[in-house]
Amino acid sequence: MSGTATQTAATPREASAVEEAVSWTRVGPRVEELLAEFCASQRAAAPLGRARDLWDHLVRSLEGGKRVRPQLACLAYTSFEGESGGACAAVGAAFELLHAALLLHDDVIDRDFVRRGRPNVAGIYREDGLSRGLTPPEAGHLGASVAIIAGDLLLTGSFRMLEGATPMPAVRDRLAALFHRAIADAAAGELADVLLSHGAGMSAGAGGSVDDVLEMERLKTAVYSFEAPLRAGAILAGAAPGVVDAVGRVGTLIGVAYQVIDDVLGTFGDERQTGKPTTSDLREGKLTVLTAFARENPLVARHLAQEFGGGDGHEPTRLREILDKAGARGHALNLAHALVTEALDEARRAELPPALRSELTRICNHVLHRES
Amino acid sequence: MSGTATQTAATPREASAVEEAVSWTRVGPRVEELLAEFCASQRAAAPLGRARDLWDHLVRSLEGGKRVRPQLACLAYTSFEGESGGACAAVGAAFELLHAALLLHDDVIDRDFVRRGRPNVAGIYREDGLSRGLTPPEAGHLGASVAIIAGDLLLTGSFRMLEGATPMPAVRDRLAALFHRAIADAAAGELADVLLSHGAGMSAGAGGSVDDVLEMERLKTAVYSFEAPLRAGAILAGAAPGVVDAVGRVGTLIGVAYQVIDDVLGTFGDERQTGKPTTSDLREGKLTVLTAFARENPLVARHLAQEFGGGDGHEPTRLREILDKAGARGHALNLAHALVTEALDEARRAELPPALRSELTRICNHVLHRES
Repeated sequence: MSGTATQTAATPREASAVEEAVSWTRVGPRVEELLAEFCASQRAAAPLGRARDLWDHLVRSLEGGKRVRPQLACLAYTSFEGESGGACAAVGAAFELLHAALLLHDDVIDRDFVRRGRPNVAGIYREDGLSRGLTPPEAGHLGASVAIIAGDLLLTGSFRMLEGATPMPAVRDRLAALFHRAIADAAAGELADVLLSHGAGMSAGAGGSVDDVLEMERLKTAVYSFEAPLRAGAILAGAAPGVVDAVGRVGTLIGVAYQVIDDVLGTFGDERQTGKPTTSDLREGKLTVLTAFARENPLVARHLAQEFGGGDGHEPTRLREILDKAGARGHALNLAHALVTEALDEARRAELPPALRSELTRICNHVLHRES
Repeated sequence: MSGTATQTAATPREASAVEEAVSWTRVGPRVEELLAEFCASQRAAAPLGRARDLWDHLVRSLEGGKRVRPQLACLAYTSFEGESGGACAAVGAAFELLHAALLLHDDVIDRDFVRRGRPNVAGIYREDGLSRGLTPPEAGHLGASVAIIAGDLLLTGSFRMLEGATPMPAVRDRLAALFHRAIADAAAGELADVLLSHGAGMSAGAGGSVDDVLEMERLKTAVYSFEAPLRAGAILAGAAPGVVDAVGRVGTLIGVAYQVIDDVLGTFGDERQTGKPTTSDLREGKLTVLTAFARENPLVARHLAQEFGGGDGHEPTRLREILDKAGARGHALNLAHALVTEALDEARRAELPPALRSELTRICNHVLHRES
């Protein structure tokens, strides 16, 4: 609750003072506090020692994220002259809890036991099981089971955090509707990812085109990570519906570009910087923009079918070679560039505030040139 | 929404008229409508054909339940003269969505692909994977992955349903806090179940006593299935906090008794009536009240260790024999009887309304004598 905020509409000069008062410098630490307070209260209320142990692991799993979603919510909020740093931080923290919940379940689905270079929750409990003499499959199932439960706890937590963000019923209802749709989209995107990776296609048809992958990536990640946090910040600041929609469209485009670059880094990136083995996507037979593009070339598709068709033991290095020769990397980079250009065009057309546009430009540059 | 409700406090005669108006006969069909409407709207808004297919399966998985939780919410609500059948139905539907979500994730954790005698969501997608040539482990993982996503969708849906139940902020906040705690308890109970079944114990100690199992069953099921729905109905009807607590305590005791009988039916029941193989608990090496009791007898424990220790391929029939000879069934039935007696004593001490007490007595008799 900014000290400079008043009940009456702010004049441009006052708004500028408010804008300085509510900034990421102030909101960021509050997000960390809210997350820490939430985990501490959940841990204190947990009815069993084992549940308290799990919260200790969850606290650590929440640390060290880039806080992309809270930052985007804060950016939109300050751009539209929102006046309550506390409400903005709570909405950001809700998205961060949602993100952590979805990552936990995504890791179970991808059978990943490592996140950011260290064991994730499933990995911690798998190691514990192994140390107590469980067989590797049993220990893996134990780890996955705990991660499913942990994801449910954080998903529940995200709603709790969102409910407390603002006392204004109309704003709260709009935020809740946005949040629910973002989760429904993330679920649909995850489902498409699972089915595409298992060759079942996205719709009644076979699926697996570059467009199918882009739509999957939009739903699975771009909506809840870019579009919805930007929209939420704008809604919370009282922006007009048309402006909220424009901000959302820009967020979608940047978010999809981010995922395309993620695919490139996942296959061609520097493991030491990304913290993720470049063989992971290829090993799981995941359909990415790169593999989808390569499959659209009949000659390359035949090569790929031979490699992918064998079930276990895809040869990641060989696959990477095929993708590189087919020009998949260059195609993906062009695609990301085009998406980002479209995003900035949209921001200009919608006449978003100059400060917001300049910050979006900076984000777009980062998305295109990041190495981790 | 009751036609007979007025803004002023009801006189006893009016209250009785209201009580007749808001009854399960009226609330039950409204719960079904709300669930059907919710699924239809989610299906219509789903962004992909595959997500719409999943909602079709979820609609069917929601059909045919006993609606225990909505009935308990309605019972408490009408006993304390609540006047809005619509609000009561929405709260009941929220618990039903929560229940379905937790079952989906519980089945993944238990590696069950059948529920109520037919394939559950995981089973449906596993069969689909098998029919498309996936290996059994890959098809099983595909099924589990979709069930994790489906559980997240229904968990999210339960919050959506609860948010819309009542426009009164104070009541909504109390219901939300209750709902969140019920989920945290269910998660802690599920965690304890997973760790006990893998021999990791419930607390820093080894765990696995009858008391540990009873506490696990209280948390995992009794809270969200009995205590919380009864409390929710009482809160929604405006009952005093002390009364809400008393109703909650009664619910807990009945809920734990229900679970004890569930353990008995899971091992000694009639498969044709329970719809669940009596070998399922024993095959998974699940710790139940029965196995915990048997393990507390050193001689029996040695027998059991030999059978349980071998990893795969527990011999269910042999285990059932050991449990029966050890008197585990009789002990469990006595336990359930004692819990139910305590519940009805508590209802009397708290001077709950006679109509509520008589209905709770009927429920207790059903819990003790049910065969499915």
